Amino acid sequence: MNLKNYKDLETKFARIYKLEQAIELLFWDDQVNMPSSSSESRAQVISEMQLVVQELLLSNNVAELISETDNKDLNAWQQSNLKAMNKQYQDARAIPPDLQQAYTLTVMKSKNAWRELRAKNDWNSFLPIFKEVVNLSRQRGDALASKFGMPIYDALLKTSQEDFDSKSIESFFNDLKTWLPNLAKDIIDKQSTPKLITGNFPTNIQKELGLEIMKVLGFDSTRGRLDISHHPFCGGVPSDVRITTRYYDDDFTKSLMAIIHETGHASYEQGLPREWEFQPVGTNCGMMIHESQSLLFEMQIGRSPEFIKFLIPKIKQFFGEQEEFNLNNMINLYHHVEAGYIRVYADEVTYPLHVILRYEIEKDLMEGKIEAHHIPELWDNKMQQYLGLSTKGNYQNGCMQDMHWPSGLFGYFPSYTLGAMLAAQLFTSIREQIPNIANDIKMGDISKIRDWLSKNLWQIANSTTPNQLIINATGKKLSTEYFKQHLFNRYIGT
Amino acid sequence: MNLKNYKDLETKFARIYKLEQAIELLFWDDQVNMPSSSSESRAQVISEMQLVVQELLLSNNVAELISETDNKDLNAWQQSNLKAMNKQYQDARAIPPDLQQAYTLTVMKSKNAWRELRAKNDWNSFLPIFKEVVNLSRQRGDALASKFGMPIYDALLKTSQEDFDSKSIESFFNDLKTWLPNLAKDIIDKQSTPKLITGNFPTNIQKELGLEIMKVLGFDSTRGRLDISHHPFCGGVPSDVRITTRYYDDDFTKSLMAIIHETGHASYEQGLPREWEFQPVGTNCGMMIHESQSLLFEMQIGRSPEFIKFLIPKIKQFFGEQEEFNLNNMINLYHHVEAGYIRVYADEVTYPLHVILRYEIEKDLMEGKIEAHHIPELWDNKMQQYLGLSTKGNYQNGCMQDMHWPSGLFGYFPSYTLGAMLAAQLFTSIREQIPNIANDIKMGDISKIRDWLSKNLWQIANSTTPNQLIINATGKKLSTEYFKQHLFNRYIGT
Repeated sequence: MNLKNYKDLETKFARIYKLEQAIELLFWDDQVNMPSSSSESRAQVISEMQLVVQELLLSNNVAELISETDNKDLNAWQQSNLKAMNKQYQDARAIPPDLQQAYTLTVMKSKNAWRELRAKNDWNSFLPIFKEVVNLSRQRGDALASKFGMPIYDALLKTSQEDFDSKSIESFFNDLKTWLPNLAKDIIDKQSTPKLITGNFPTNIQKELGLEIMKVLGFDSTRGRLDISHHPFCGGVPSDVRITTRYYDDDFTKSLMAIIHETGHASYEQGLPREWEFQPVGTNCGMMIHESQSLLFEMQIGRSPEFIKFLIPKIKQFFGEQEEFNLNNMINLYHHVEAGYIRVYADEVTYPLHVILRYEIEKDLMEGKIEAHHIPELWDNKMQQYLGLSTKGNYQNGCMQDMHWPSGLFGYFPSYTLGAMLAAQLFTSIREQIPNIANDIKMGDISKIRDWLSKNLWQIANSTTPNQLIINATGKKLSTEYFKQHLFNRYIGT
Repeated sequence: MNLKNYKDLETKFARIYKLEQAIELLFWDDQVNMPSSSSESRAQVISEMQLVVQELLLSNNVAELISETDNKDLNAWQQSNLKAMNKQYQDARAIPPDLQQAYTLTVMKSKNAWRELRAKNDWNSFLPIFKEVVNLSRQRGDALASKFGMPIYDALLKTSQEDFDSKSIESFFNDLKTWLPNLAKDIIDKQSTPKLITGNFPTNIQKELGLEIMKVLGFDSTRGRLDISHHPFCGGVPSDVRITTRYYDDDFTKSLMAIIHETGHASYEQGLPREWEFQPVGTNCGMMIHESQSLLFEMQIGRSPEFIKFLIPKIKQFFGEQEEFNLNNMINLYHHVEAGYIRVYADEVTYPLHVILRYEIEKDLMEGKIEAHHIPELWDNKMQQYLGLSTKGNYQNGCMQDMHWPSGLFGYFPSYTLGAMLAAQLFTSIREQIPNIANDIKMGDISKIRDWLSKNLWQIANSTTPNQLIINATGKKLSTEYFKQHLFNRYIGT
C-alpha cells in the first residue's frame, strides 16, 4: 500500500514534470525564435500551463498521498524523491493561487516594460509597474516566510538555494568585503594591458569554433543545441539542453568564453541520471550548484593558462594567424580585471562586488527598509564605494541593467557568488584527487574532471541537500578560502 | 444562467486550446530543431500533454455544461462556438481512452521505424509495426463509425474534412479519372522542354528571396517565421505561424514555390479572427479548406504567367542575370508536367492521380477488403494504370513515400485534391469579382485577393461548415468543373 501510494505520486509528478519540460522548451523558444508580436499570446499559453501545473500539484489527492506515504518499503532515492515532492508541494501551497496569478501576470507586464524602458534609460516610467512587482514579491515572500517560520528574505533565498540563509551569506560577503576591493585595485594597478584582438570574425566561423570547443568539453550534441539569443543562457531540458550565445563580429573571445560557461551548465543537465528524468529527485540541486558548474567550466578550466594554451592552435585554425594570439597576450586578455558598470561583463574579481551590492539592496527592499524609488541613489553610492564608479542618471547601466528584479526574482543574486566560491572549492578537490590534471587540460582532455563531477555532483542530482553535496564532494563546508586562494594564485601569483 | 454556462465552457476550451497551441509549437520544434537523441523524451512530453487535453475535454463537467446550454442568449458566433465545442467533445468521446493511448504510442514507434526503414527501402521490416497501426486505426474508425452511424471510411474522412463523404469524393474522382490521365498524356506529348536552371544558389540568398516574396504575398513576419525542415510544412499557431522549406543549392525554383505554397497556409492562419484565438470557432475550417489556400497561392497565383513575370526581376536581383531566366523558359519550367513517383514533387496535373491511388487503397484497407501486405502490389498496379510507372520493389518511392499512413492518418489524402478543385473554383470567383486582377498580379499586388479571401474565408474561420463556406464564397457547390477549366486553360490553351 505504501509503495503503491508512492508509485501513484511518481505518476502524478511525471505528468507535472513533463508539462514543466514543455514550459522550459517554450521559454527557450521565446528567447531564440519568437517573432516580435507573438509575445502576448505566448504569455497566455505559458501562464495557462503554469496554472495547470500548479493545480495538479495542489490537488487534494497529492497532499493525501504524501501524508499517507512514509519511508517504509522505499529505497534511498525513492525516499529522497518523496521528500522533494513534499518540498515542492509545500512551496506551492504556501502561496495563495490568486496571489501567484497576480504575480505572474504583473511580472510579464513588467518584463515587457523593462525591455522597452531600459533601452530608453527611463527609470521614472518603469517605477509604477516595478512598485507593483515589489509589492507582490513582498506578499509572496511574506506568505513563504510565515509558512516556513523565517524572515522574508531567507524565505525568498530558500527558493533559489536551500541551506544558505542570509546569516551565512552575510558572513561570506563580509569576509569578501574585507579583501576583495583592495585585491581588485592591486590587480588593476599591476596588470599588463593586453593588446586587443582586431579584425572581422564571421558569426558562422565563431559558431563552428564554439561547437568544436563544446565537443572538447564533452557536450553531447545529439541531446542539445547551440543557438543565438540576446543574453547567453542555458535552457531546454536534460534530454535536450539548449545553450545560447551572442556573437560580436569584431571579437570572438567573448562568445567563446560565454559558450564555455554555458557548456558547464549544460554538462550538469546532460549529466543528470536519465532514469529519474521526470521526477523531482532527478533535477539539479538548486541554482548555486548550477552556477558552480558553469563557473568551474569557465573560470577554473576555460580561463586557466593551460586551457588558453590549448585554445590558441584552435583559434588560429579557425581565424588564421594573428600577432595578438600569442599565449601571454591571450592570458592577459582573459585575465584582465576592470571596474565596470555591467555585472554580466564583469571579470571574476570584481563580479562578487556587483553581487554584494544587489544583495544589500534587495534584502532591504524586501524587508521594507527601503522602497523602490530609493534604489538609484543607493546603487550609485554602493557603486562608488565598491568599484569607484558613479551611475548617477545612468539607470540603463545601473539599477535597470538586470532582468531579475523586473521579473520578480529576489534572492537569486547570491547564487552567483556562492557558485564562484564553490567552483574554486571543487576544483581544489579535483586538483588534489586527480594527479597532473593541469597536463590533461593543456591537451584539451577534461574527461577525468567530467568523471569526477559526474560521480560527485551530476549523478547525485537532487537526492541530497546542497550543503551535504558540498561536504561529500570536498570534505568541507562551503568557504571563501578556496576562492580567495584561487584569485591570489591567478592574479597575484603567490 | 445559460450565458454563464457558455462562458464557463469558453474558459475550459481556452485552456484546452492554449495547451494545444503549446503542443503545436513543440511539433514544429521537433521538425526544425530537435537533436537526434531527444525524440523519445519529447514524445513522452507531447503524449502526456495530449492526454491532459483529452482528460480536460472528457471531464464530466464539459458534457454537462454542453447539454445544459442552448442557443438562447447566445449570438451567432457563440452559437457556432458551442456547436464546435460539442463536435470536438463528441469526437473525443467516441474513442475509448485506452484505444486512443495505444494508438498514439504505436504511431510514434511506427513513425520512427518508417523514417529509418524508408531510407533502407525495407518494407518487410516495416510491415509488422505498420500492421499494428492499421489494426488500431481500424478500431478507431469503427468506434467513430458506430458513434456517428456511418461507414468506417466516411467516419475517418469526417475527422479531416466535414461535408465530403466517400460518395461525393468518388463522384469527383470518377469524373477526374475520365479525362485527367489523357490530359496528362496530351500535355506531356506537346509541351516544350524547359532549359534547366544551373548554377550555385546559396541557401542564405534563397532565404532572402523567399522572405521578400513572402512579404509581397502579405505574410506578417512580426507574427511568423521561415525555417528549414526535411519536408516543407506550415506549423505553429495563428499568432506565430511558422513555415518551413528545404533548399537545394543547385536549384532555387523548388524552394521558392514551396515557400509560396506554405505562405498560402500561413495567410489563412494569420488571417483568422484574433478575438477567437483560443476557441474552437476561431480555428480553420478543416484541411480541405486549408489545402485550397496553399494551392490558390501556389497554383492560381504563384505559377500564373503574370506572377512568374513579376518574379523574374526579383530572381535576377538576387542571383544575377542568366539566360534561362527569360519569361518563356520560366513559364515552361513552372508548367512542366511529368509522370513521377513522388506525390510531393508532382505537378498539379498528375497530382490528383497520386491522390486517387491512395484514396482507393486506403479505403479498401480500412474496410478490411485488403490487408497491409497487399499494398505494394496494388500500388504498382495503380501506378502503371494511372501514370505508366512501375514501383515493383521500389517501396521507398512507392508505398513508403508518405508519412500519413505510418502516422495512422487515413482519410486525409482526398483533402489535397478537393483543395486543388476549390482553389480553382475560388479563383474563378475572384477573377469574376475583381476587375483586372491579372494586372495586379503582374505588379506583385495581391492585396485585393487577400481582402477577398479574408472576407470570404479567413475571417469566417470555423463558424460555418466547409460546404456552406464554399457556397457563400463562390455561389456554387464544390465541383471539378473549375479545376478542369483551369488545367485546360493553362496547359492546352483553350
